[in-house]
Amino acid sequence: MAKGCLIVCDGNNGAGKSSVIRTITEHLESQHHQVVVTREPGGTRIGEKIREVVLDPETPELCDTTELLLFAAARAQHLKEKIIPAIDAGKVVICDRFTPATIAFQHYGRGIALDLVQSINSFALEGFVPDLNIILDVDPEVGMRRVASRGEGLDRMEMQKREFLARARDGFLRQAEESPDTFVVIDASQSFEAVSSQVLSVVDALLAKLG
Amino acid sequence: MAKGCLIVCDGNNGAGKSSVIRTITEHLESQHHQVVVTREPGGTRIGEKIREVVLDPETPELCDTTELLLFAAARAQHLKEKIIPAIDAGKVVICDRFTPATIAFQHYGRGIALDLVQSINSFALEGFVPDLNIILDVDPEVGMRRVASRGEGLDRMEMQKREFLARARDGFLRQAEESPDTFVVIDASQSFEAVSSQVLSVVDALLAKLG
Repeated sequence: MAKGCLIVCDGNNGAGKSSVIRTITEHLESQHHQVVVTREPGGTRIGEKIREVVLDPETPELCDTTELLLFAAARAQHLKEKIIPAIDAGKVVICDRFTPATIAFQHYGRGIALDLVQSINSFALEGFVPDLNIILDVDPEVGMRRVASRGEGLDRMEMQKREFLARARDGFLRQAEESPDTFVVIDASQSFEAVSSQVLSVVDALLAKLG
Repeated sequence: MAKGCLIVCDGNNGAGKSSVIRTITEHLESQHHQVVVTREPGGTRIGEKIREVVLDPETPELCDTTELLLFAAARAQHLKEKIIPAIDAGKVVICDRFTPATIAFQHYGRGIALDLVQSINSFALEGFVPDLNIILDVDPEVGMRRVASRGEGLDRMEMQKREFLARARDGFLRQAEESPDTFVVIDASQSFEAVSSQVLSVVDALLAKLG
């Protein structure tokens, strides 16, 4: 059985991650791939409990260090319990957020030193890296308007200020520049059809490469 | 106003930490010290939520890496939100478990490399160290019998096997040997009066030293 892979879909909120993930899933399932869709923080029973703590809008006192450690804790569990077993079983795992978000939000956004963020990430991941990181790039103002239009309450990360989201956007783009082999940036201000078409061609190229 | 301090009370379960902490508290309050009693994991609203996740006996799938990161997350929050402000306000903070437990359980017990455990701890603590670590040393079998006799349910850490608890005990003793300036080992198999008397003399010596 061929090994599976991990495709990460990341970027600021309101970039259209959920719709893109649905499109990729339908596309791959029509080609008879087994697909596992998951998300961070979360993806496991323990990870979802951690998600409740870290995204709770009622705990503004949560400090930056705690936040980073909680995201890492959820990720370590997610990887061992769900992602790696699925990849080993030949499945394509599609994850809503992963390490790019941690670098973008905790380093570029919060200002925690990059080497510290990377060392906590490395500890959680033990050398594992995603096969592909799709960054949906959107102007933070546009993204926040889309989030607001959903009419749901905002979580703690969605309540960040505009400057924070602008630094995070810059952080996503910088990571993509630094690792062109595993990152692709898609302009999420385009029509959904244009975004989908570009995403699917990148996904097809990855799967062709992996054989 | 004089600065306060942090006194940690640690050791295997059933060593009598809670009783010793009550004794220290009454002793210090009778001398008009302001005392804050707290615990790990926990001590804050966020820390107590993390405690629920990490000690939940219904989640045996929690992996070692996740466990270490959750303890560290709770500790970072505890330190910034509660311990440091109390010390800065001149209070004596007494904490039920702290870094000695992490080294004992996660390194000596679980086998996570010492440098990794220490680097995660350092990230959470940013250089902070307790003024005194009181290790209540007890044979794990005796400790577990005492825990069982309380008639409460066991948490996830209390459900560990005898060999794990024996390695952890060894880990507490090794840390004390390596840092005699900040660690004191008390034989918890003695009478409560003997344990109390030794603990209080150590605490008095610390406060005299701090002035």
